This record gives sequence, C-alpha cells and structure tokens, in this order.
Amino acid sequence: MNKVQTLKGFRDYLPGQMAVRNRVIGIIRNVFEKYGFEELQTPAMEYQEVLLGKYGEEAEKLMYLFDDPGGRSVGLKYDLTVPLARVMATYPQLPKPFKRYQMQPVWRAEKPQKGRFREFYQCDVDTIGSSSPLADAEIIAVISESLENLGFEDFSININSRKVLFHIMESSGLPEDKYLTVIQSVDKLDKKPEEEIKQELRNKGINEQSIENLFSSMKSCQPDEYLQQVINLAKKYSVDDRLYFQPSLARGLDYYTGPIFETVVTEPKIGSITGGGRYDNLLKQIGGPDEPAVGTTIGLDRIVEVITELEMNNDIPFSSTKVLATVFQPELLDDTIDLVNSLRKSGINTELYPDENSKIEKQLKYADKKGIPFAIIVGPEETERGKYVLKNLEERTQQELSFEELLATLS
Amino acid sequence: MNKVQTLKGFRDYLPGQMAVRNRVIGIIRNVFEKYGFEELQTPAMEYQEVLLGKYGEEAEKLMYLFDDPGGRSVGLKYDLTVPLARVMATYPQLPKPFKRYQMQPVWRAEKPQKGRFREFYQCDVDTIGSSSPLADAEIIAVISESLENLGFEDFSININSRKVLFHIMESSGLPEDKYLTVIQSVDKLDKKPEEEIKQELRNKGINEQSIENLFSSMKSCQPDEYLQQVINLAKKYSVDDRLYFQPSLARGLDYYTGPIFETVVTEPKIGSITGGGRYDNLLKQIGGPDEPAVGTTIGLDRIVEVITELEMNNDIPFSSTKVLATVFQPELLDDTIDLVNSLRKSGINTELYPDENSKIEKQLKYADKKGIPFAIIVGPEETERGKYVLKNLEERTQQELSFEELLATLS
Repeated sequence: MNKVQTLKGFRDYLPGQMAVRNRVIGIIRNVFEKYGFEELQTPAMEYQEVLLGKYGEEAEKLMYLFDDPGGRSVGLKYDLTVPLARVMATYPQLPKPFKRYQMQPVWRAEKPQKGRFREFYQCDVDTIGSSSPLADAEIIAVISESLENLGFEDFSININSRKVLFHIMESSGLPEDKYLTVIQSVDKLDKKPEEEIKQELRNKGINEQSIENLFSSMKSCQPDEYLQQVINLAKKYSVDDRLYFQPSLARGLDYYTGPIFETVVTEPKIGSITGGGRYDNLLKQIGGPDEPAVGTTIGLDRIVEVITELEMNNDIPFSSTKVLATVFQPELLDDTIDLVNSLRKSGINTELYPDENSKIEKQLKYADKKGIPFAIIVGPEETERGKYVLKNLEERTQQELSFEELLATLS
Repeated sequence: MNKVQTLKGFRDYLPGQMAVRNRVIGIIRNVFEKYGFEELQTPAMEYQEVLLGKYGEEAEKLMYLFDDPGGRSVGLKYDLTVPLARVMATYPQLPKPFKRYQMQPVWRAEKPQKGRFREFYQCDVDTIGSSSPLADAEIIAVISESLENLGFEDFSININSRKVLFHIMESSGLPEDKYLTVIQSVDKLDKKPEEEIKQELRNKGINEQSIENLFSSMKSCQPDEYLQQVINLAKKYSVDDRLYFQPSLARGLDYYTGPIFETVVTEPKIGSITGGGRYDNLLKQIGGPDEPAVGTTIGLDRIVEVITELEMNNDIPFSSTKVLATVFQPELLDDTIDLVNSLRKSGINTELYPDENSKIEKQLKYADKKGIPFAIIVGPEETERGKYVLKNLEERTQQELSFEELLATLS
C-alpha cells in the first residue's frame, strides 16, 4: 500500500478522539430526546435528481457526484436538509408536526483548511409542520440546554428576524437593490468595529445620511410581533441571560423566512457554533412538501474543538477502559480470568492483557500508553491472601486491596 | 423532485426503526467496552489504491469507485478490515495489542434481495497484535455476552480451525487439488442432510472410499492443540453450553489461518449472525503491518431482523418520547411549560405539542400515531387544584394525578 494516508480533508477518529466525540454526541442526543425529538437516519447516497438544483451552482461544484456500477447518476449527501425534504416526500403518512434530529456525516469537496473538512458530521434538529412560535422557542431551549449540559459557560444566543432586517433597510431610505449588500456588511458588526463597517458601506456607494439612518434604526428598532413571542416563550425555558436580540444578525437570508438565531462563544474566537431559524418555504423549494419548519444545526466539530481548546474534556477519560488486568504468570491465568469476569459483571470496563507470556513491565507500559487509568496485578502471594495489587497509573501509587475494596475504588 | 425514493438497496431509518437499532448498538457497544475494546471510526472514502486488489476481481466489481471533483481515484469502503489495515499502517505508534471495535456503514453494489443491502452497517471487533489463544477466547466471550444481553436464548457458537479441516482432508486420502471443493461441500452439513452432501461429493468425482474416510474422520477428529486451548479458555467465560466443536465448519479459508467461528440461531432460519476467526497473514496481505489478528463481525442487520421476527423488541418503546404534554388552551400555556420543564428536569422525555391552537383531540391522535405511550392534559380546573390528567394511550385509561404521582408513574 503506497498511500497509507486518509484522503485530504478526511479524518480517522482514534479511540481517544472517539471518547470525546461519543461524550458530546451522547449529551446532545439526550437533550434532543428529552425535548421529544426522535432520530432519523438517511443513506449516504441519493439520486442526483434529489441532490441537484437545490442550492445553485456553487454548491453543485462541491458535491461528490458520480455514476454507480449500475450506471445511475448518484451523489453523496451534501447536507441533512435535502434528505429531510426527501423523507417528508417519501413518507407523506409521517405524523406531523415531525420533530426529528439527525446526526450523520455529509460530504463537501471544499478546500480543506483549519476546521473545514470534506467529510464532517452535521447535527440537525428541526420541527416540521408547526407555524407556532412555541416550535422556535423550543429549538432555542434545546440549544441552550445542550451547551449547558456540555459544560459551556460563556455563550450567547443571538436572535433576529428577516422582518426586522428588512424593516431597518426600508426605514433607512436605502435603495432596494442595496438591501442584500448592506445586510452582508452589518452582519459583521459582531466581529468588526462600527467604524470599519461604515467605511465598507461608503465604499459600497451608500450615502452618509442612509448610513446614519441605518445605525440609528438598528439601535432603536424592536423585534416584530412573532419574534417577540418567540423571545418571551424562550425565556420561560431559563435561557434568559443567554438570549440577545441583535438587529444586525443575518444568516442566509434566501433560506430563512422568520426568526434567525446563532450561538457564539466568547473564547476561543471560532465563529458561531450553532445556526438556525425558521424556513417556511425551503422544504417545498427543494422538493419536499409545503410545510413550515424551524430548526438549527449544531456544529459538532466546532464544539469538539472548543471543548478541547478550553480543556473542558479533562474529566473525559481518554480510554473507555477503566482497568487493565495484567497476567502475572500463566499459572495464575485462571484466577485472573475469575477476577476479570467479576469486575465486568459489576459493570467495570476491564481489559485482560491478551498475552499470558508478556513481562509485567511491558503490560503496565501498555496500559499507560493507552491511557488506561488503573492496572491490577494478580500475584501468587496476594492471591493466597485473597488480595490484589491495584496500581493507579496516573498518580503512580499502588495499594493492596480485597475484591470489595477494588470494586469500591474502580466504581 | 421526481424521484422521491431512496436508491434501491439503500434505506431510511425512521424513528421507530432507529429505536430498535439504537438499543441493539448500545447493548453491543457496552459489551465491547466492558471487554476493553475501544472505538475507531474511519472515513467513508479512501484512495482506490487502498481499496483495490485486496479481494480479487469479484469484490472490485461490487465497489463504488469514482473520481472525486479534484480528479483523485477514490471509492467508498467495502468493509472495515481494509480501513483497519490502513489505520495500523498510518499510525505505527498505536499501542499494540490494538483492541478496537468499529460500527460504520459499508457500501457494496450487490443485487439487492431480502436481507441484502447496498449500504449496511458492519460491526467488527478485533484484537491486533496478539498470538495468544486468550485473544481468541475473549472474542468468543464478547459474542456470547452480546447475544445474551440482547435477549437471545437459542444460539450456538460453532468453532473449528483451518488445521482440523486440512488434517481431515489429508487423513481421508483425498488428492490435494480436491481439498477446497470438498471443504465447500462439507461446510453445508449444518444446512443439508449427510446423504445429499455425499452425492455432491460423488458428482465432484470423489471416490467412495475417500468419502467414507472423510465422514469417519470428521466424526472422530479432535481439535488441534491451539483450538483446544481456545475452547478451554472460552469455557471460563460461561460460554460453556453455547460452544460446539464442529469439524465441518469452514469460512473463507484463504482469509483465516487458525480458529474459525460463527454463531447460528435456531429460529428464524437466517444463516449465521456472527462470523470470525484468526487471520494472522491478512493485514500484511492487504497493506497493513505484519501482525497476528483475531476478531469477528456481528451482523447488525440480521440481528435487528431476528429481534423483530421473534418479537424480542416488545419492550423497546417505538418512540423515544415518553409523554406528550398537550396544550389545552393558549391561556394555560405558561402552566404547561412549567410542567414540561419540571418533567424534563426529572429526566423524562417530554414533547410539548408545538401548536397552542390545536384541538385537544388532534393532539391526542398525534401522540397515538407517533407511539408516544402517555399524554398529559393541563386543564383549567385541574390546574387550580394542582392536578394533571394523565392518559395512558395504550390502555385507553386516564387518571387525575398530583405532580409527584405523575413523576412516579412516568419514571
């Protein structure tokens, strides 16, 4: 094998990395299900007819499209929204509102760079078929509770709506054909100083009066009625001090029809870690039924990155294995297996070193290298006394314990 | 969207199906980790150089091979063994023995038929880098405990070894060039009557004396030394009455080098649900390091099929949601949200019906259709008395309960 590497932009997840990912996925899944969302999975591959023409040419260029061995034109899924629309069309009998979550890989042939991959997990949670602000509020509550349960402390959920943005544009006296470019500029207000944005607008040919109107309008504007209802409802879910009305926020405006929201963390500077909103026309547009919808994407990879950078994963064991049972000598293998059976029955993840003829030093070094926190030595003298030597490989200490004491320490 | 279906051989997993799959995956994962196996995930896509030439032309025809948008020759993974070999080559620093499990989809462009799909999950557990019979025995123990924990009662693990098979061939006086074809015939002895196999052998030109020798040799032969050690060790893990030495068992002989084992269930007749063995030369052969290895595949799809056919999933709720909180009238929404928050805090998966203006009958019908077992009505009179109406939608009964009683019933 000459090429023993993964393709650029593709990643292996080795056991230590899987431990963090599984923890994050487990916590988020738990919140989703606590809020009554159920899991959906769809195939990696779909007909090109399903995938194409929904996003425009830019996206098409990034899709993995090919002919399968049977000559069908197929492709790998680019996101989880098109498959959701397809599922809604395939199974019209699905009870609605349909509250589903989906955590699966998607594929985009983008230029790989820090934090951008060609294969990555999307984690979407959506309510299809409800026009009520309750549905929006519960999505916001899910985001807040997920991040809290993951251990995030400094984050804010910024919210705005399409209506607010367009109202600001209108009342500032801007020409309609400038709305989108102006929105693109003010959307950066959370990252760049006001003066820089103003200069950008001047460069785009916006006159001084309009710029002034724009900024004063952004300062004085209020949420529209629907958005206010969403905010009021969301606050009943203890997202109070996390939720900020931010009139400059814009996110994919041709996509969203009502409220839009995103989550940012103070540190590290990584951009938004969730993004979503109401998209009442999209499903129909991409081939699904004419149903209102609201939801969010949670950026699993970015969350794992933040957790690692902020060292929030200190309490996540690097190995899912709690203890290595070493084999002191082949004659003691039976006693060692007995002990291993008992530990496993008590629910303790126990590895039995799979070679009864290895030196004990080699076995201990192996546990250490793998990040297994404890090792047990079943020696001849201890066995006679019904005792075991437990080594704490992190603290480099050891104790002689009875089985009950062993259990208590490892549980 | 004209084509609103999945591709043939590809499947959506709707929430009810995901519930069973997640249960099965959770139980198996738990056993794997209890035995000290850790999770590995690899990309869907690999270089064709990695995928090709490992299995021969038959397999190549079934692979999804294509050029990516950057013009690289790539393909989707066909199994989990080639990626394992690639990972072992990519990270030579991985501590060995490497005990890993991997549960991911693979893709094969086979003709779809009952129980055979083009996208399906493989679930592999292997120990790389140990030549000890302990490693084989623990794989067998993992199989047995996984199936027991899944609720299987009637299953047997059949075991044999390459050495036993070749010894039988030799001692029967068969010509060496007939070994493989004879082995292919006797491998069917668990499915077909002895007389039918004998006739098949006659048709293959085997003389009567050799056939007689063959069958008497199969009846009298004993496990070789290594296999006997594996059997003795496996029995220490309470797989006793499950494990059968079956001298006619053969599984992919060019693949395995030592013990081979598979699991069959008495009902339904579905073939083997696990298959594995020792494959000491394979990793090197397919581009990995020269390391001994032993492991098994657990047929996740077949297991889900058996569980469904034998109605072993009766205790698995169809919905992950325990209760639907209905909205009696918009004025009571605040009280309803308060209740929902409290239930969720107590860990009860609670859906709040996401439309405050729907008729109560519509909301109850929705819960029923989704398979949510309970519904709560927060009515004006009950709220004043601090009570809630809990409907059991399966039994079609209802009770008026305090919050504490509600919790007790739903927990």
